Amino acid sequence: MAMEKITYRPARDEWAYTFGGRMPVAHLRSGDVLEVATEDCFGGLVRGPADLPSQVCRMPYLNPVSGPFFIEDAEPGDTLAIHLISIVPARDWGVSSTFPHFGALTSTSHTAALQPPLEERVWVYGIDRQAGTVRFQATESDHTVDLPLDPMIGTIGVAPGGFEARSTIVPDTHGGNLDTPELRAGTTLYLGVNVHGAMLALGDGHARQGEGEACGVGVEIATTTTLAVEVIKGVPAMWPRLETDTSIMSIGCARPLEDAYRIAYHDLVGWVESLAGLETLDAYQLVSQAGRSPIGNVCDPNYTILAAIGKALLPSADPAYVGVHSRLRQSVAGLR
Amino acid sequence: MAMEKITYRPARDEWAYTFGGRMPVAHLRSGDVLEVATEDCFGGLVRGPADLPSQVCRMPYLNPVSGPFFIEDAEPGDTLAIHLISIVPARDWGVSSTFPHFGALTSTSHTAALQPPLEERVWVYGIDRQAGTVRFQATESDHTVDLPLDPMIGTIGVAPGGFEARSTIVPDTHGGNLDTPELRAGTTLYLGVNVHGAMLALGDGHARQGEGEACGVGVEIATTTTLAVEVIKGVPAMWPRLETDTSIMSIGCARPLEDAYRIAYHDLVGWVESLAGLETLDAYQLVSQAGRSPIGNVCDPNYTILAAIGKALLPSADPAYVGVHSRLRQSVAGLR
Amino acid sequence: MAMEKITYRPARDEWAYTFGGRMPVAHLRSGDVLEVATEDCFGGLVRGPADLPSQVCRMPYLNPVSGPFFIEDAEPGDTLAIHLISIVPARDWGVSSTFPHFGALTSTSHTAALQPPLEERVWVYGIDRQAGTVRFQATESDHTVDLPLDPMIGTIGVAPGGFEARSTIVPDTHGGNLDTPELRAGTTLYLGVNVHGAMLALGDGHARQGEGEACGVGVEIATTTTLAVEVIKGVPAMWPRLETDTSIMSIGCARPLEDAYRIAYHDLVGWVESLAGLETLDAYQLVSQAGRSPIGNVCDPNYTILAAIGKALLPSADPAYVGVHSRLRQSVAGLR
Amino acid sequence: MAMEKITYRPARDEWAYTFGGRMPVAHLRSGDVLEVATEDCFGGLVRGPADLPSQVCRMPYLNPVSGPFFIEDAEPGDTLAIHLISIVPARDWGVSSTFPHFGALTSTSHTAALQPPLEERVWVYGIDRQAGTVRFQATESDHTVDLPLDPMIGTIGVAPGGFEARSTIVPDTHGGNLDTPELRAGTTLYLGVNVHGAMLALGDGHARQGEGEACGVGVEIATTTTLAVEVIKGVPAMWPRLETDTSIMSIGCARPLEDAYRIAYHDLVGWVESLAGLETLDAYQLVSQAGRSPIGNVCDPNYTILAAIGKALLPSADPAYVGVHSRLRQSVAGLR
Repeated sequence: MAMEKITYRPARDEWAYTFGGRMPVAHLRSGDVLEVATEDCFGGLVRGPADLPSQVCRMPYLNPVSGPFFIEDAEPGDTLAIHLISIVPARDWGVSSTFPHFGALTSTSHTAALQPPLEERVWVYGIDRQAGTVRFQATESDHTVDLPLDPMIGTIGVAPGGFEARSTIVPDTHGGNLDTPELRAGTTLYLGVNVHGAMLALGDGHARQGEGEACGVGVEIATTTTLAVEVIKGVPAMWPRLETDTSIMSIGCARPLEDAYRIAYHDLVGWVESLAGLETLDAYQLVSQAGRSPIGNVCDPNYTILAAIGKALLPSADPAYVGVHSRLRQSVAGLR
Repeated sequence: MAMEKITYRPARDEWAYTFGGRMPVAHLRSGDVLEVATEDCFGGLVRGPADLPSQVCRMPYLNPVSGPFFIEDAEPGDTLAIHLISIVPARDWGVSSTFPHFGALTSTSHTAALQPPLEERVWVYGIDRQAGTVRFQATESDHTVDLPLDPMIGTIGVAPGGFEARSTIVPDTHGGNLDTPELRAGTTLYLGVNVHGAMLALGDGHARQGEGEACGVGVEIATTTTLAVEVIKGVPAMWPRLETDTSIMSIGCARPLEDAYRIAYHDLVGWVESLAGLETLDAYQLVSQAGRSPIGNVCDPNYTILAAIGKALLPSADPAYVGVHSRLRQSVAGLR
Repeated sequence: MAMEKITYRPARDEWAYTFGGRMPVAHLRSGDVLEVATEDCFGGLVRGPADLPSQVCRMPYLNPVSGPFFIEDAEPGDTLAIHLISIVPARDWGVSSTFPHFGALTSTSHTAALQPPLEERVWVYGIDRQAGTVRFQATESDHTVDLPLDPMIGTIGVAPGGFEARSTIVPDTHGGNLDTPELRAGTTLYLGVNVHGAMLALGDGHARQGEGEACGVGVEIATTTTLAVEVIKGVPAMWPRLETDTSIMSIGCARPLEDAYRIAYHDLVGWVESLAGLETLDAYQLVSQAGRSPIGNVCDPNYTILAAIGKALLPSADPAYVGVHSRLRQSVAGLR
Repeated sequence: MAMEKITYRPARDEWAYTFGGRMPVAHLRSGDVLEVATEDCFGGLVRGPADLPSQVCRMPYLNPVSGPFFIEDAEPGDTLAIHLISIVPARDWGVSSTFPHFGALTSTSHTAALQPPLEERVWVYGIDRQAGTVRFQATESDHTVDLPLDPMIGTIGVAPGGFEARSTIVPDTHGGNLDTPELRAGTTLYLGVNVHGAMLALGDGHARQGEGEACGVGVEIATTTTLAVEVIKGVPAMWPRLETDTSIMSIGCARPLEDAYRIAYHDLVGWVESLAGLETLDAYQLVSQAGRSPIGNVCDPNYTILAAIGKALLPSADPAYVGVHSRLRQSVAGLR
């Protein structure tokens, strides 16, 4: 299989705002490498303190994604592996904000209250790729501090099943607005294919974010993201999964937050069971003592929690998804 | 305005399984009356104890709706009033069931557990339209009892905004699978219009259901439903609302269930405020002491709760939505 | 068994603020009638618009109850039946309020947000026992309306098990701050006995409240409440239950609200099963189609939902708890 | 201040099962060091596969704690600092189990379902203190793996306020069954004092646990735990807080899980604000990008989430609680 590199840089009117319901912008084959430009969640319109998101952005034109990409040979019942090779900030700044009635520490459209919204405010962060830092600057005092640069893709997914088209704001079984820092370079994401061609799309880079994205907005950036794809035939996937060199992780998306936890652990127990040949309750016991549970977001229409376990803790057995993570990781080693 | 009566009876391959993403099957104008045949949530395939839903039905071909109907002159920012004139069971039987990992008293795909599913079982109910009864027959004993016939439409909605298409299983701001007994004949439903033509569709009749639809399935029936529509120009609506001769009601759809409650009461407070000229906290106080809170469903992807208050408790003022409920109710009096 | 009537009117320093952890104020025997004075949730300190609860009340001296009453012969594993004979407002006014960061439409100590609290405000209601009305008077306009007087006891319970003592603000398995309008005269409440003597206490009358007590406060009143008690030996109870002349009801107390629903329906299914001889899934099916689900409160540390079904829908069988409701209802007929 | 070392080893009949409602077993002064023996959550009764917890344990005699200890000079409105010096497993084994209707991946008493419980099963872990490992052994296959030994105290708290006594199963504002791995040696816990003498107690050691304690039970151990206490006068605390050499953390306890998250972040924002002089929204922004959110438990009556931030990210300012963590850490350096 000859690996090809496809480059895609969407024009503003080519951005998508849903997963599903769109025609493909390009075709990829298993093994292909894609270099794609993504814009930030505000469409690049928030560039300084005066650019209040609720004023410069217009619903539903938030959280644009680049794509969808038609994946050759991907059919419902298959799994699509997406290996993130690199996520490079496109500019030397990122931006965050509060947003009226959005975030974890405010009443919202759904956790509705009669209180007026919090003040809407913008924070601009300097990004130093050389130093690997993201600079926080307080707005009401002179405190400034450098945080580690840790670029991630907030939104990545395929078309949902059941003839649905879902807003890019939503995380669910099809991926979408997962908003977890674990979606960094070096990670492989597994998504179940729901429609002919899978229809992969991505966007919403963050220079970094805290666990839960408390205020509802990360350090939002445009990126140049490079990834490789591979179709795993005949293996379905219910919920999004991740693999790194050392861990496997299941992602649950739901409200209330405990259901996201339950989904993630239920999926991880099943994964450990099938991958490592452990009986169900043995798998449940092992992940109960050894599992980590990084929180993705506690602000989006569905919240996300991950359930993770170290591969070294499992019986030596066939690797996950017949070794696609290692294979892709090696094949693209020169591209990082 | 000349009222016209449109009749629509879909063929099996004309059923829709989403709100949004579909071409209209017919056009209606404000004041028109629609007589529409709806099939039950199982597509009529569950007719006896041997027809286990998970075997005779195939995902995502559940919960078909009839439509969508293009409403002339309905534009985003308008509200569509739908007055339910009559809901007539199409057959002399209805059907309910348990369904694997679906319902309130079972673990589910989202409230995930390692326990095996409850037994899947079907109950067939006799419907006596003359007597106005729905007959429950126990499967494991000879207990039988007549419950009041109280036909309702479980699923009714318009296309969502933001370019989305949503499964007919889901209730949300666009209506959809609201699953509340309050959607009976004599009620007017208000839905915000999100797309050109509104794209109204409906189905999923119940001969009756308990509050919350605990087992996840009502007494499912095919119906002949008659309704009238009217477009209220320039008046947006955020969440579905209902009006009867005596009450106004707001509908909240969310998880967890308390968010459905918050949404419904937040919307009702705003409605009372604008309709009756009460200051916000006075409206909050009044609905706190006089509000009723019928639960719709506690099983669907979003749960539903209604917040209701008697019209007689409000200051005499202009009626809701410039009197559309009374007007439609009178104009169709001969059709009931 | 000779019925005795005990009268108890606590002095201010005799009020209790917990269930459990207190010595009894009087002893009752099965069949005895108790006439007890209860103060309102504010200890009678909020009497007008200037009496802001957060200023005139001091934590934890909120929601006083009268008692506890030691019930002779009540032991862990028994059930205590409490039949409410009458609940009479002690004054010709009641009072409600907002309270900082308490209620359904505000951020709270637990649904925490950075927003400032809603304005704290007091509403005084006129109560006309003859007319059977509670008069709402808006504070910011001249709207006034009479609501039906429907007196209830908000807080009634026994000592919890496990050596616990719980604040009177909390509803749980031991009863407590259930805050449901169903606790009106004519109803029998069943509570599992957890400690020697049961230790019954009650207070927090409401002239009425809406379903869910949205603002967090009903129309709070002092009452003279008359009730009769009977110990049902050897029959344990997990969750509080109610019986009226026509219905049986189970009460669930939990967060999130769907867990209150699940608890209530799970308990009702078991009750129907044991009372009516229905098999589990038949009972689940019947309550799914015929159940009502009145919401109690959506503001207290645990929320409450009831699951109710009409007795007439069950197979003729032995009455609940060997007929204690009918028996008490008849024996006290002259006292209403 | 002369530091004294108190040793306490309770007899079986001295264990406590509540926080509050108990007389003290010993007195401590600020600066004193306590060496205390704690038994495991099963009272040491589960020692092998045949010892099913639901059979060998009897409610409410679960989760015994050692104490309470009266802290001299601790009064309501003060904060008690408890520095964990060392947590040493008392035996060379630990034990875990499933428990009927308890845990995250099962229906429970509150997330009630009609499904039968999961199989109850016991896992015994070998503990090698020298190697620093905890050995998992599958029950249905021969897989075995060593996990890092990471001893923690699951349950530690003071008497609650409001005259309450709470089961040791419950985590809340008073501490209690917090079940977070962050309660390891080297950490300082801050708890608000609610009653005269604070009444500190602790128990429920874990050799380790996964984040969320998915199956409801950690690797349960008896311990010898050494700690130092100090009273911080006139500084109240609402929710439990932690401090390590590098981080400050707030603990939220609630259901649903998102409320635990909200509480923890709300508290951390306030802490950062007061400690570092950041304005509220600046503090919100900083913790949103730099916060970590380790999950404690998703099985107990309240779930726990922590919100953590590195001290190095805050403006150089006075240390938390006037430096008590560093001071205690240094003063007990010889005791580790």
